[in-house]
Amino acid sequence: MQLKHISLLNYKNIRQAELEFEPGINCFVGNNGAGKTNLLDSIYYISFCKSYFNPIDSQLICHDEEFFVIQAQYEIQNQDEEFYAALRKNRKKQFKRNKKEYSRLSDHIGLLPLVMISPGDERLISDGSDQRRKFIDGVVSQYNKSYLASILRYNRCLTQRNALLKSAKGRSASIDGQLEVWDEQLASIGALIFDERSGFIKELKPVFQKYHRFISGESEVVDIVYHSHHQRASLEEQLKKNRERDLVLGYTSRGVHRDELEFLLDGYPIKKNGSQGQTKTFFMALKLAQYEFLNEHFGYAPVLLLDDMFDKLDDYRAARLIELMGGDSFHQIFITDTQKSRLLEIVKKTGKTFSFFNVNDGNITQDI
Amino acid sequence: MQLKHISLLNYKNIRQAELEFEPGINCFVGNNGAGKTNLLDSIYYISFCKSYFNPIDSQLICHDEEFFVIQAQYEIQNQDEEFYAALRKNRKKQFKRNKKEYSRLSDHIGLLPLVMISPGDERLISDGSDQRRKFIDGVVSQYNKSYLASILRYNRCLTQRNALLKSAKGRSASIDGQLEVWDEQLASIGALIFDERSGFIKELKPVFQKYHRFISGESEVVDIVYHSHHQRASLEEQLKKNRERDLVLGYTSRGVHRDELEFLLDGYPIKKNGSQGQTKTFFMALKLAQYEFLNEHFGYAPVLLLDDMFDKLDDYRAARLIELMGGDSFHQIFITDTQKSRLLEIVKKTGKTFSFFNVNDGNITQDI
Repeated sequence: MQLKHISLLNYKNIRQAELEFEPGINCFVGNNGAGKTNLLDSIYYISFCKSYFNPIDSQLICHDEEFFVIQAQYEIQNQDEEFYAALRKNRKKQFKRNKKEYSRLSDHIGLLPLVMISPGDERLISDGSDQRRKFIDGVVSQYNKSYLASILRYNRCLTQRNALLKSAKGRSASIDGQLEVWDEQLASIGALIFDERSGFIKELKPVFQKYHRFISGESEVVDIVYHSHHQRASLEEQLKKNRERDLVLGYTSRGVHRDELEFLLDGYPIKKNGSQGQTKTFFMALKLAQYEFLNEHFGYAPVLLLDDMFDKLDDYRAARLIELMGGDSFHQIFITDTQKSRLLEIVKKTGKTFSFFNVNDGNITQDI
Repeated sequence: MQLKHISLLNYKNIRQAELEFEPGINCFVGNNGAGKTNLLDSIYYISFCKSYFNPIDSQLICHDEEFFVIQAQYEIQNQDEEFYAALRKNRKKQFKRNKKEYSRLSDHIGLLPLVMISPGDERLISDGSDQRRKFIDGVVSQYNKSYLASILRYNRCLTQRNALLKSAKGRSASIDGQLEVWDEQLASIGALIFDERSGFIKELKPVFQKYHRFISGESEVVDIVYHSHHQRASLEEQLKKNRERDLVLGYTSRGVHRDELEFLLDGYPIKKNGSQGQTKTFFMALKLAQYEFLNEHFGYAPVLLLDDMFDKLDDYRAARLIELMGGDSFHQIFITDTQKSRLLEIVKKTGKTFSFFNVNDGNITQDI
């Protein structure tokens, strides 16, 4: 898959841009705050109908303007396709494929596979378990629509059960029948989610470890361990057993909504023991594994966005990363950096075709 | 103030180290995960009796070991002083000054002023308001012990009032008298805290803006705005007025524990609008202002720790930062970086005396 052309109007600080891209590596260089990451974010937006950084769409419109528009031309398996995204203040966002509006946005998601690696991914490691569940759910949903449907159904049941628990204080016996209905549903949908998550992690883990070994030079051993209540006993049994406790707590304490993915570095939690460079290497390897995973499931290569990737890595790891980027595993790549000379040296080494763009106060110009 | 010598045993991945430091700039260079930041953290620990990164002391002991020891020799206003910190598993930590144990740890805090600037400070901007309150409270407490006492008293009153609110459901009238006692206390201690915070921010703001202008080259305008319930009406009045609401919520919705510090970039919240480099510049200027503030209040220069400072900054901002570091405002500085050549070039430009140390898998050796 290749993004051939993008046209932007009023996306964050980019008022207007028309850009042609290389099938190889496209580099965006500029000072802090110039708009490099905003450009990557616009490419992310056209894939996922949302920003990577800001969940509030209206804040993506350039200050003092009324709307933004993104138009993108892709080549997908030798076929040219046009995509259009627009948002006007206080209106619903609009998405079109080859000039035809989608009836549902969800029909678009998954068409343009993409992996973004950004310094903010550090939160995958440092933040709570919900970040890691979101990561799994996000990747699996990209190629499995029924998984996404299961997650949504599970969450609806959970909300209902929690509301019931909260309202039942003092008269708990009377709701036993109702709780049983929810328990049954949570257990059966939970089992589906558990199976899908286990399968995904089993498949992802060796690929993740392969990339990590490659970048770190086998100096560290990493592991991912999946913990779920589902592993201990039937979820329905556990829900029933914890009913009294849940009534006191006012929420459901068992189920796949409490799943945890444990990240280990040399046998210890990386969250507590990893340095900044080790943390970066860890989430990079995780995201590269996600790339390979999506590549295989879609049958064509996702777009790869690398935001500020070479900061914090020591020379050895940076060199290994360049070696990877130059290989056949990765196709079209977009990279931001503040230092042109460093980046130029890096992309030359990959042997791929490349283009440079200067980003300056929201203006993007190709560097000849 | 100058840290002349440090000796470490089993601090994180540093099993043993004996290091002599320059009065100027001390640089630690090594690969990812080598232990550079751990070394800075040990200097932080001897100042604050806690780690910058990990609140759980026992996790600072090197894996498989039973204890850690940090010994440091400082020159403070032409006087040599020795400090000792040690922790044995499952024991209380021990702190000594010139071989004499402190009766209370709080007697030590403030003796060795220090400012650490680390990529993790990004959370000052991206996280919730509690991070920013903690920042203010941390700085002010360093030179004002009565402020720290006020904060502790305020929090105790708040806990009591919240417990009362929670227990009072359904019989609210009966606790009016008790609530009044707490309201009075919260209002009077809250007023002290508010005054101290306002004064601090008023003093910090122009210094912060000065540093920001210098580093960013006046390309951006930044501001800090302090919001407190205290500004609207008497806190006692507000507590009384919101009593009904608080009883429903089960907690106290008004008071200085809800203070917010708003960070603006060109008139918009930097949290939503700042790039990574802009965010870094913002919190760097904030921390440098903190340095100047402490310098003035103590009458001698704090130690400055710079963890990974040059990453993400564009060349212009990095050059300006070097200019600052070379000036008279800053004294002893400790810097970590993965790239020796880059850092060597940087410190040469400052014109200060400097030393280089190689950090490799927890081993630290001076570079001759």
